[in-house]
Formats: sequence, structure tokens, C-alpha cells
Amino acid sequence: MPDPITNFNEAPDFRVETLGECKFASPFHNGFFVPDDSRVLYQSRLEEVRPYFTAGKEPPSLECGGPRQKIFFDPAKTRAGIVTCGGLCPGLNDVIRAIVLGLHYHYGVGGTLGFRYGYEGLVERLGHQLLNLTPDSVAPIYQVGGSILGSSRGPQDPAEMLDYLQKLGVNILFAVGGDGTLRGAGKISDEARRRGYELAVVGVPKTIDNDISFISQSFGFITAVSESRTAIASAHAEANGARNGIGLVKLMGRDSGFIAAFACLATSEVNYCLIPEVKFSLPRLLQSLQQRLAEKGHAVIVAAEGAGQDLLASAGERDASGNVKHGDIGTYLASEIKKHFKAANTEVNLKYIDPSYIIRSVPANARDSGFCLYLGHNAVHAAMAGRTNIVVGTWNEQPTHLPISVATSSRKKIEPCGKLWGAVLAATGQPAEL
Amino acid sequence: MPDPITNFNEAPDFRVETLGECKFASPFHNGFFVPDDSRVLYQSRLEEVRPYFTAGKEPPSLECGGPRQKIFFDPAKTRAGIVTCGGLCPGLNDVIRAIVLGLHYHYGVGGTLGFRYGYEGLVERLGHQLLNLTPDSVAPIYQVGGSILGSSRGPQDPAEMLDYLQKLGVNILFAVGGDGTLRGAGKISDEARRRGYELAVVGVPKTIDNDISFISQSFGFITAVSESRTAIASAHAEANGARNGIGLVKLMGRDSGFIAAFACLATSEVNYCLIPEVKFSLPRLLQSLQQRLAEKGHAVIVAAEGAGQDLLASAGERDASGNVKHGDIGTYLASEIKKHFKAANTEVNLKYIDPSYIIRSVPANARDSGFCLYLGHNAVHAAMAGRTNIVVGTWNEQPTHLPISVATSSRKKIEPCGKLWGAVLAATGQPAEL
Amino acid sequence: MPDPITNFNEAPDFRVETLGECKFASPFHNGFFVPDDSRVLYQSRLEEVRPYFTAGKEPPSLECGGPRQKIFFDPAKTRAGIVTCGGLCPGLNDVIRAIVLGLHYHYGVGGTLGFRYGYEGLVERLGHQLLNLTPDSVAPIYQVGGSILGSSRGPQDPAEMLDYLQKLGVNILFAVGGDGTLRGAGKISDEARRRGYELAVVGVPKTIDNDISFISQSFGFITAVSESRTAIASAHAEANGARNGIGLVKLMGRDSGFIAAFACLATSEVNYCLIPEVKFSLPRLLQSLQQRLAEKGHAVIVAAEGAGQDLLASAGERDASGNVKHGDIGTYLASEIKKHFKAANTEVNLKYIDPSYIIRSVPANARDSGFCLYLGHNAVHAAMAGRTNIVVGTWNEQPTHLPISVATSSRKKIEPCGKLWGAVLAATGQPAEL
Amino acid sequence: MPDPITNFNEAPDFRVETLGECKFASPFHNGFFVPDDSRVLYQSRLEEVRPYFTAGKEPPSLECGGPRQKIFFDPAKTRAGIVTCGGLCPGLNDVIRAIVLGLHYHYGVGGTLGFRYGYEGLVERLGHQLLNLTPDSVAPIYQVGGSILGSSRGPQDPAEMLDYLQKLGVNILFAVGGDGTLRGAGKISDEARRRGYELAVVGVPKTIDNDISFISQSFGFITAVSESRTAIASAHAEANGARNGIGLVKLMGRDSGFIAAFACLATSEVNYCLIPEVKFSLPRLLQSLQQRLAEKGHAVIVAAEGAGQDLLASAGERDASGNVKHGDIGTYLASEIKKHFKAANTEVNLKYIDPSYIIRSVPANARDSGFCLYLGHNAVHAAMAGRTNIVVGTWNEQPTHLPISVATSSRKKIEPCGKLWGAVLAATGQPAEL
Repeated sequence: MPDPITNFNEAPDFRVETLGECKFASPFHNGFFVPDDSRVLYQSRLEEVRPYFTAGKEPPSLECGGPRQKIFFDPAKTRAGIVTCGGLCPGLNDVIRAIVLGLHYHYGVGGTLGFRYGYEGLVERLGHQLLNLTPDSVAPIYQVGGSILGSSRGPQDPAEMLDYLQKLGVNILFAVGGDGTLRGAGKISDEARRRGYELAVVGVPKTIDNDISFISQSFGFITAVSESRTAIASAHAEANGARNGIGLVKLMGRDSGFIAAFACLATSEVNYCLIPEVKFSLPRLLQSLQQRLAEKGHAVIVAAEGAGQDLLASAGERDASGNVKHGDIGTYLASEIKKHFKAANTEVNLKYIDPSYIIRSVPANARDSGFCLYLGHNAVHAAMAGRTNIVVGTWNEQPTHLPISVATSSRKKIEPCGKLWGAVLAATGQPAEL
Repeated sequence: MPDPITNFNEAPDFRVETLGECKFASPFHNGFFVPDDSRVLYQSRLEEVRPYFTAGKEPPSLECGGPRQKIFFDPAKTRAGIVTCGGLCPGLNDVIRAIVLGLHYHYGVGGTLGFRYGYEGLVERLGHQLLNLTPDSVAPIYQVGGSILGSSRGPQDPAEMLDYLQKLGVNILFAVGGDGTLRGAGKISDEARRRGYELAVVGVPKTIDNDISFISQSFGFITAVSESRTAIASAHAEANGARNGIGLVKLMGRDSGFIAAFACLATSEVNYCLIPEVKFSLPRLLQSLQQRLAEKGHAVIVAAEGAGQDLLASAGERDASGNVKHGDIGTYLASEIKKHFKAANTEVNLKYIDPSYIIRSVPANARDSGFCLYLGHNAVHAAMAGRTNIVVGTWNEQPTHLPISVATSSRKKIEPCGKLWGAVLAATGQPAEL
Repeated sequence: MPDPITNFNEAPDFRVETLGECKFASPFHNGFFVPDDSRVLYQSRLEEVRPYFTAGKEPPSLECGGPRQKIFFDPAKTRAGIVTCGGLCPGLNDVIRAIVLGLHYHYGVGGTLGFRYGYEGLVERLGHQLLNLTPDSVAPIYQVGGSILGSSRGPQDPAEMLDYLQKLGVNILFAVGGDGTLRGAGKISDEARRRGYELAVVGVPKTIDNDISFISQSFGFITAVSESRTAIASAHAEANGARNGIGLVKLMGRDSGFIAAFACLATSEVNYCLIPEVKFSLPRLLQSLQQRLAEKGHAVIVAAEGAGQDLLASAGERDASGNVKHGDIGTYLASEIKKHFKAANTEVNLKYIDPSYIIRSVPANARDSGFCLYLGHNAVHAAMAGRTNIVVGTWNEQPTHLPISVATSSRKKIEPCGKLWGAVLAATGQPAEL
Repeated sequence: MPDPITNFNEAPDFRVETLGECKFASPFHNGFFVPDDSRVLYQSRLEEVRPYFTAGKEPPSLECGGPRQKIFFDPAKTRAGIVTCGGLCPGLNDVIRAIVLGLHYHYGVGGTLGFRYGYEGLVERLGHQLLNLTPDSVAPIYQVGGSILGSSRGPQDPAEMLDYLQKLGVNILFAVGGDGTLRGAGKISDEARRRGYELAVVGVPKTIDNDISFISQSFGFITAVSESRTAIASAHAEANGARNGIGLVKLMGRDSGFIAAFACLATSEVNYCLIPEVKFSLPRLLQSLQQRLAEKGHAVIVAAEGAGQDLLASAGERDASGNVKHGDIGTYLASEIKKHFKAANTEVNLKYIDPSYIIRSVPANARDSGFCLYLGHNAVHAAMAGRTNIVVGTWNEQPTHLPISVATSSRKKIEPCGKLWGAVLAATGQPAEL
């Protein structure tokens, strides 16, 4: 049985790359170490795991993250750098803080460099300033949104970036970003291996959409859901305050509707939730909407930005990060709804709310802050143990290491026939088929 | 010397209309009553008031609001109704609650009617439901945004509305809304006078822009300023997080820039504040912006929606409430800035944030809630004392009655050479002349 | 290797009680059903699970929750009731809402009863009013803290409660509460079995402390962590604003310090985190504190209420729910710290903050709201499938059913040598041994 | 007629002290200057002012604040210092920021010194560090509570403080604090006059209680009211969630109940508001409470800390700032209520909430931030114009200068027979006489 949330039937190759043998004793003396061969089961149900053993095989599993007793890098000689890329996401500063604190308190590694403005900061000739990150300097940054390092979109030449890293004596690079960023990090790792330069490249995957495969949850997602509530409450107040009022909210979610779905679970005011994974018929939506207005006098619609893309003529353009540009479902729906009710000779009051930047740029809430600390520490443990070309994540409530190639191979999606979507249908009361 | 904030040199006729002699003893026995002839000085400085007395004249003054010892209506036979019109504004529900509580606890007047969907609710043939408002039913409504009565834009026939009011036996109509609403309320009052029907029509002026003349502050304004902070913080995070990042925020303020100005005072992140009252040259703005980006690498601009209208080709259209439709300064600026820097071959990252509905639909904050209670109580006192065709407000820290005609005669504006704008310049550090 | 967070080496008997064969087809037609024999692995690491299979045994597992294709109760003839007991916890209203929505939308079960004031409401002779809960009536309740049903502490006679349930024709009882409540629910279930009355008793475990064994996370916990941030920020402002300022915050956590620990991960301002699971020496704490004040001039201490109980003379009293009454570590620490520095002739400014009720009574944040919906739906699925004497929870990211006896057998604790505590040490920078 | 809010029948001597003739042209070129002899009327009603003129006298008035065309200090040679004293209050950092911004942008005065830990920082031998305050360093501080300078209570020797100021070449001292602080500032000003040292001492009065006479509103008060809402909501949730639930909240307000009163206006949940200005009989309160519990089943009480002091045996102790120590009305009421209902054999559930430090230490909200900017700028204008021994404030919506001696002569109180208390009675519905 396929997993109800992720939709992978066959597990990919979860083996991760290491720089070599771990020879140094970890100074991290909390008494708890993860054995080097510890692995997290990919599946979590007995009936999924049993057949493998019955067939004499091992079930698929991911390398378990966490502190190792033996580490690859000598803390006294280690230098780390951090770069953040792509669009803003709540928690960027928390991850930066976590990495610096983890390096300092767990391993006694100081002198961590902050590269400015994404991969541009790794290109020496662009002349961006380097930041020196210390526990004191990063302590308060969790209180503000954005990234203190700044960010940029788009790739740079891996060779040129590695030149600078080598010149600076950086042994560990932490790259915080989305698919494009992680692929770029992978290329730096590849180039380092070619050159025989011992560089650990560890990614912390950033996607406010929570759509990274084989990773239970990405940082910033919970905060985004929380902030979405405000926009939905506004839409409800507007819809409720007018005769035939319609509040329409566009939320993030290019390929996966997790933010929209969880936001709908967290309020009682949404009547229609539209996500990329579940196609809908515009006429059926309009008909249902018309019926609801007739009965209740108002309605609230939440649409993930990737919803209904089949209805939009897409030019197939791509943005600077290489993502396909989407048609704007929000303005499209607003226009179609108005057109429909004008034709039906019904006056409606539609208010369209697009809170995008406001959500992306808030500071992480407490849960996400703590989660970022956890992720950042695990990134540090992974790097000190010589893992490279990987991202850190969580799976089955355990910390994990995942090859960058696997993390960027596909996107996690909401299963239309799964628990989550069923809960959304029960929360909104919308027709199962629109 | 003209007042530095308002810009009226000559005071209008502040005399208010009353229904007749107050014969009933007020049941309001808190021990404090405002004498019937109490008046609030229009000016508050000695040097402004002295010349009048020197010349043997009385200085201009407004009728002081508050509870009267003798009232016009017999509480036992009084019935009130409330209507809210126009766009949402924080505090609408608080005003409704305040009026119902004031009628009930101060005067023992119950059975207050809530008319739904603005003036439409006063037109019987439109068939909107009437709400029965009680202290219990209005107690929790301050916790949600919008208006529990709903709202609509545009006028209705005064005669038709009065027919319904008479049929329902309504003696007091509270109208909460902007200029158009208040003028409409005035027409109902006029029609009642013509018919000899004793109806007190008392307005509570609603303008999130805080631009009503002779009224120190309108409800919802403080909440709007508070909410603007979030949008500005987002703009700053976005601007700060990108190379040559520009955060552009459009705030409410069609004719007056009070929200934009106060929001800029309340943060340290805004570098340019643009308001309707102070013209700016686009080339000078762009040049200053370019210089700032060169020096600091990022900038935040706040523009009131009415700023720079001279730069926009306006078609002179009007909305359903009769307000002139404005060109969109936000999208205009965004486009011009991008054009300019493209021509200058400088890559900039501009993020445009338009939080309009989110600000309009939030619940009032604590200060505004208390202020709405104060306004609503004063509206009740005024109506019970037989005042009609008026709005309630505050002036020189006193409650006031103001003829509707005066309240709607012009708009309060920021004085370009005044204290407030000077404080904004010191807070943003922007050039005095842009 | 024992699990790093929970501290159970041997799994208990996870088998759950059912009322009988499921004969009715579920009307829940979302296309996704959980097979009846689906089980969630207790362990999630390959090296933990492998030995069982090698030895020809099945690894321990919990029954997986979720909707079943065949159900026990005929929806048309089913009546449910809900009761909330014990102290307030964020999310109570969300759980109530979730159960009512789930019954209505998933199964078409209406007429759900709300019992008031905890188990008192189940005792007919006490004469408490019954509430009729509908999707409309529960829609907005997630916006307010507390429980719309009210609550009370302490047990009632199971027989007397069952008498009333039978009289009312209730087939399903949802009990939301802590250990005492759940044990009480178990007794009702036992009594029903004795009488041969087909009653499904399903608990939703409530503990703001997140200390229920075999349940990954309890509702309200995330919100409590978020709210704790405010208290810690206050303590920091007070500590930072005075010479030798000490901010002392007492947080919930009678037996387990999860709230304190996660709150410390989510801020940068805490210097000492004290939890029940990790003993500390008062002299060592005072010495470290003295050193920190000498170096930094201020300090923030967070103490879980159950921390340092060995230092307090406890009378062994119990509250109405049967929990051991704790000595007050907050006032004790405040007094000892003042005494110490007075003796050391050092003036300190200690501010003690105890935000208890403020945290317990806030509405759930968005994440917790969504989580409560998930839990409530699973409680409904479990009950409709005839499970009884159980609680619903989550484990390894799956919904689970757990016998009440197991859920109340022991408490989940922070492992002193585990990941979580290690992360706290790195976040506070406090000595590993105090 | 006495003013309904303040209770002064006779105006004191409002004349302020100046250092000498203003000879320098102000570099502040916003085009708006306040004439040197501009005065704000003490009264604002026509009937209050008219009699003075009729009698050939001038009505009482306060010096109007704001920028002057001629200033006393040469900006190029001016050095300022800032000190914050006493307990925390929202907005301290905003005032610091405002003064630094005002000096820099309005007058080009830089090099402003921050003295640490209250008046201790002005005593050289105590060796506290001096902070150099710049527009950049103070820009973000409005986002955090407390004071970046730190604070302390109690006086220091004026001569010793002046020695240090002279040594540092400080011409302007801004003192932010309460009565004791302001009196201390006055003594420094007196000592400087004796020595012939030209020092402008300008106070910004700090009282979260809003109880400074002749000042309409003090900074931080609005924020305190806002934060009180959370505590009241908690008390309501607790009260509502239990049978015979009583939520008791103690709010700030030693001599004046403004916070309690305004907080009650801003919510619908408070049933009894107790303030220092209105005595109550404990038996009557208990009787009314008993009746309410019988009818409604729950109640919320808000008590200002100075309420009911006549009921408490006060030892007449004083704290470090010289304020009389109050008995604790909160614990007293909690204990008396429990005693009463125990005697009445009625089980009640009382929850006592004392949010004191949490309210004092939050950052200022947007309105207070803007207000602090306004106050701070006016303090700068006053100082540059050579005013000394004064505080800045607002009156009749104008900026004012007030002699320190007048500001500290008495406290502003709520008039029991006035508008504000009447509004509170209508909002709570409590008996007019308790």
C-alpha cells in the first residue's frame, strides 16, 4: 500500500556520501551518540516492513542523523561557512543561529563565515562582504524575519565558488535553500571531490511549501500555516460583512497544497480549498458557490498558487531559480467568479487577498524556532562526521541524512485519497468532487 | 496662526440641531452630567483665543458631548436602530456593542434593532433580516473583525428608509459610516423633520484614514497603524534580504496620509514616506533611491494610496460610494522604479506589499476598543438628548457634537509645514524635498 | 538501545479492546481506508526492529488509527457525548469542534451532547445542563481559550454516570482529560461491558506537559511552548534592564520538562533550564549564577514546576485529581538566590514570573488547531469502529489507538543523556552538570 | 466645574525655567516653528475660560512645546546624555531612540551618551560603562522591551552626578523616569544653576499608571492596557471553564486606576472593576459576587493594585524609590473570597492572575512607539531652546513644557463622578455602589 501522504511506491537509493574515515573523538560529551550504522526505517507500519524480512531482504531505510562518537574533522582546524539562497522563508535566521551555536557549543568550532546574498557571496570577484558569525552575534537574530545573510536566486559557477572556499580554508559549507540551491551545493561537493579537497557540503532544505520528498516537515511551514490564519480571518470578515460576500485567499503552494490544506484545518471559515494535487472543474465550483451564496450569503475560498494550473494558459516560463512560472490562479478565479455572477445577474462582493510576502518574511514561531535549532544541530553533526552531498531532515520522528540527489528528485504531494485531504473535506464541508 | 495639523483658518458654523426641549429626567445617575450649554473651544492656544475676547467676541466652539440631566426621549418608549455602511474598518463591532451597552445600562433602553447590509437593510422591500441586539448578544463581538450587521455601499431613497423606520417605531438611528453614509443619514434626518417625525439621527464617523475635519481621531485608525507595522516589517525583511532590495508598501490614505505617517513614526525601517498632502518629483525620488541603494544596499518605501496622484492619469471615475477612484500609486511606483533601474543597468529586487484588506478587517486593538466604547456612549447620550443630524467626535480631549454638514464639508489633512510631517522626516531621514 | 526520548526498554501490551464485529459499511467515502489489521511499529530504527524478525518474532506495534471500511455503529442510530475534565489546556475547544465535525461530515452522526463541568455533567442528579453540539455551534469556538463545556476535577461514580448515558441513549463517549480522567473513562467502559451495554469510550489525552507515554505529542503543548516565549522575553527584559538582573520563569512541567526544554530551544535568552528529569545541586547553580553575573551582569533561569523537588520538603499532599502536590520551586529558588547573594553582599534584582494560567487558557495556535482536528477525527473513526477503553494518539507520524491502561501506566520523560537535553545544553550554554 | 478626569480646581504656577536668551538660529528647517510665547490653555471649555477674560485676567496656560526658531545651544558644541530610571515601562527604548534621532536629524547633534543603570550611571566612581548612542545603534531597539540602558531605583548625590556631567561636557541631560527620578533631575538642575553650569535638564515622565498631573497621557500606558486584555481573557477562560469559576486579575495602578479602567472598557468580560479612587465594601462585593455566581455561574474581577488599601493593614513601608509599599489586594481578595464561599458552603474555583512583569516588559505597541517619538522630539526641542527643570507632556492635544515641581506635586486620578468611571460602570454592569 502506498504511503497515504507521500506517494512513492519504491524507495530510492538512500545511501549517503562520506568524506572518509572518522578518526577524531567527538568533544560532544552529552553521553548520547548515534551509532554509525543506525538507520531509520522508511516505512513505519508493520505490514509494510514484514514482507521484506519474510523475503530475506532488508527494508528500505535512511541513515539516522545525530552526533557521532568519532568525527571526521578535527574541530581545532575546522572552518565552516553558511549561505542562504532563494526566496525568504520563516526560520532562515534560526537555522543560521542553530548552526553557529551547534558548532561552538558542541564542537568548539568558531570563526564561522556568513556568505552574503546567496551563491553570489561565494564568488570572490563579486566582492560581497563576509560576515563573521559568533554565538553572540547570532543570539538575537531569531527575532526578525528574513535572513541576516541576505539571499539571491540563480546559480553560480561551482569551480569559482570552490576556489573561494579553498582560499578561505572552509571545510564545511552549509547551504540553506530550495531545489536549485541544493543542486548547486551538490555541484560544489562534486567539484571538491574531483579536486580531492575535503569539503563537507550539507544542505538544510528550505521550502515553505513543505514539499520535499522523504522529509516529514520543512522549517517555516508551521509558521506559514499560522500566518495564513490572519489572511483567512480577513477574508471571512470581508465576506461576512457584505451581501453575497466572497473572500478569496491565495496561499503559497506551487506544486503541493500543504499550506492551504493545513490552514483550512486550523480554521472554521473556509468553504472551498483548492490545491494543485486535486483538479477541479470551474463550472462545478461556480455552481456550488452560487448555491452556497443563495443559502448562506457568503463564502471563503482558499487557493494554493499551483491550484487549477490546467485551467490557465501557461507559457512555460521559468524564474531565475529555474522554477516553472505559474499562471495566477488568484486573479483568474477572481475574474471568472465576477464574470459568472455578472452573467447570472447576481451582485457579489469579492475581496481578493494575496498575503505572500507578509507570510514569507515573518520571524519563525516558537515551534519552528525550536525545530530549526534541531535541524541546524543535526546539520552540524552530519558535517563534523564527514557526510557530504546530503541534506538533513526528519523521518518517522528521527533525524535523517538524505542524498541531495534524492531530496531534489521529486516533490512530496498531498494524496487526494489520503487522510489529510479527507480531513480537509470534513473541515470545509466542500463537495468531495468539485 | 493656522492649526498645524488641521488646516482651517476660519471655523464653520458648529451649531447643532435638536429635536426639541428635553423634559425627561435622565436615569443615568453616575452623578456627572454635562451642562447643556457646555462648549469645547475650537482652538486650544491662549494666543488664538485671546483676540476674540479682546474684540468682544466669543471664540469658535463646539457643543460638548456627554450625558445630560434632562433628556428628550422617554427611555420606556424609545427604540433605536443601528446601521453600518461602506468598507470595513477596525472597531465597527465595538461601536455596535458600545451603543447597545450604553442604551441598556445608562438609559434602560432595550430592543435595539440591527439593520443588515448598510442602507439596504433600511429598505423594507429588499427583505433583509432585522437583528435584535442585546447586551449578551453584542458582548463577544469585539473579538472579531468586520461588522456583524454587514455593510454595503451606495445610497438608498431617504423617504423609503424613513417609511420603514416609522413602521418599526424607531426613534433613534445610529449610522456608522463615511462621508456618503453621513450625508445619507442627514437626508433621513431632513426627511423626518419635514414629516414631523421625531427621529434622532446620530452618526459615528468611520474613516480608517482619520481624515474627518474637526474630529481629532476616528476609530480604527490606531489599529490600522498597528497593523501597518507588520507589512513594513515584511517589506524591510524582503529589502534587507536581497542585494539592492526595495520593499514597497501601499497603505490606506486616499486624501490624507495619516496612516502612512504614523506608521513611519512607529518603526525605524522606512526610508521614504509618500503622502497625498506632499507632492514629490518622481525623478528626485528615483535619484535619491539610487543613491541610498549605492550606500546602504536596500530601501523601504511607504506610499499612501492617494500619494502622487498628479503623476497618474486619472479617469475621474467614482466608486459606488461616490468617491473618486484613484490611480494605483503602488503598481505605478513599482513599475517606474523597475524601469529606472533597468535603464541604469542596476539589478534591483523590488517586493510590493498591499495589505489593504488584512488591515481593514482585523479586530480593533484594546485602545480602539475602549475608544469605540467612549464614542458609542457619547452617541447614545447625544441621541437621548434629542440631538440629530450630527456626528459625535472628540476635540481638545473632550467629547463633541458636530453637524453632519460640517463633518462632511472637507477633509482633515497633514500640514506639510507642521509638526507631524516634521517628525516623519526625522524618523525616515528622507530629504525634506523629494 | 533505549529510545532517546521515551525511556521504555520493553513494550507493554498494546492490544486494544473492541465492542465486536464491524458490520456496517462506512459512509466515509474519501477512497482511503486503513486496513483493520494495520499496525504502527513501536520502534522506527532498522537495528531495533531487525532482531525480532531474526528471532522469528514480531516486533512490538500499536494499532493504527484512521477510518475503517466496516464500522461497528449504525450511524443512523448513533449518539455521542463529549466531556472535558481537569485543568485548562489550549485546544480543548478545537478537539470538541473536531469531534462534532468528524461525526457530522464523515459519518452523518448528529445530535452530539456536550456534558458540562467534567464528570459532574454525567451525574444526572447534579442537574447540569446538557449542550447540543452542532457543526454551526462549534465552528467559531476554536477562537477562544478554555472549554465551552467547562470542566471540573475529581472522579464520579462510574455506575451513576453510565446510568445517565444509558438513559440518554449515548453509544459513544469522548473523554478529554489527563490520567485521572482517562482512568475514570476506563471505569465507565468496564462498567458498560459488565452491563452488556455497547458503549465506545474513547479518550483524547490532555496534558499540556506532553508527558503521555507512547504518544509523540499531546495537543496544546506547541501552543504552551509558544506562549512561554513571551514570559521568557519579559524575564530577559527585566534581567537585562537591571544591574545584576535575574529573570526567573516557572513553566508547567510537573514530572517532565518538555515545555521548559522546548521553550529554551525557541529563544536565545535562557541561561539555565531546570527540569524534573535532571537533578541539580543548588550550591552549584548559585555558584555558576554568581560567575555569570560577574561576567555578563544578568541571567535568565527557566524552571519547570517539577524541577528540584528533591530540594523541597514535600508533604505528599494530593490535589482533587489525585496528583501529588508539588512544592513551589519558583518561590523556593527566588528565596534561595536572594539569600545567597545577600550573604555574598551582592545586590541582585530578581524578578519572578509565573505565567501559568495565562498559558493554559490561550486559544490553540494554528498548528495545534490542525492537530486537534486530526486527533478528534481519529477519535471519531476509532469510536465508530467500535474501539473502546482506548485513547487516540500519534506515533512514528501515524495515528494510533492505545489502551487507556497503557497510556496511564507511566509518564514520558526527557532522557538526560538524549538528543533533546543535549540541544538544550547547547542552546542555553549552561554547564552539563549543575 | 472641576475637570471630570483630572481633579484640580486651581491651576498651579506653570511658568518654566530657561537657561537664558536663545541666540542661535535653529537648523531645523521644516518651515514650522512654535512662537516662543505660545501657550496651551489649561482648560478647554468655553465656559471655563470666559470668566477669566470677563474679569480682565488671563486664563491659566502651559508653555507650548515644539521647535523654536531661535535656540539656546550651539548644535556644533552640544553634547547630550540620557538616563532611564525606575521600573520598566513599555516605550523606554522608543524614547531613547526618539531623542537620538531628534538630536541628529533635527539639530545635527551627535555623540549622545547613554548612562547605564539609572542614576548609578551618572556616578563616575561606580564605574559603569558609557554607551555611545547613534541613529544606527538605536534604530532597531524599539522592537524589544525594557531599556537598553538598564535602570536602577533610588537617588544619588546631585553634586557627584553633576561633577561627572561637567567632566564629560554634557550640556543636556534627558531623564526618563517617575516622580523620584524627576525630583532627582530637578536637583541636578538646581545644582547646575548654583554652579553656573549651563545644563538643560529635561524629563520625560514615565508612569505606566498614567497618573501624572497636567499630562494627558504618559507613554507605555496604551501598551499596558492592550497587554492587560490577554490576562483578562485568561481570567475569563478560567472562570467560564469551571463551575462557580472566578477569575481575579491584579493590574498595575498604585494610586490611580487608569489601566484597570481602560482595560475594562476594552473587553466585555469583566464584571467588577476595583480602583484606588473608588472605595468598596468587601461585604457588598462578596454579596454581589455570590448573587452573580448564582445567576451566571462565573465572574471576572479586575483590581488595580492600589484598590481597597483601606481594607489592608499597611505598615507604611516604602520601596527604594520612596513609594509607599502597598498591601497586596490580589492575594487579600483571593483569600477573602475563598473564605466567604467556604463559609457559605459553596464550592468556587478561583484563579488569580498577576501579570505585572509581563506587561511592564513588552515592547511598546505602534501607537505608543509613535507617541514616544513625539515626546522624545519635543524633549529635544525643549532642551535645545534652553528649557530646564521641566518635563515634556501633552495637554489639549498640544505639546507642553511643565515644571518638574508641578509634574511631581500630585497624581492624576479617576474622578468617581466622571465620564470615565461612568463608562466603566456601563461596560462591566457592576453596581454603582459596591
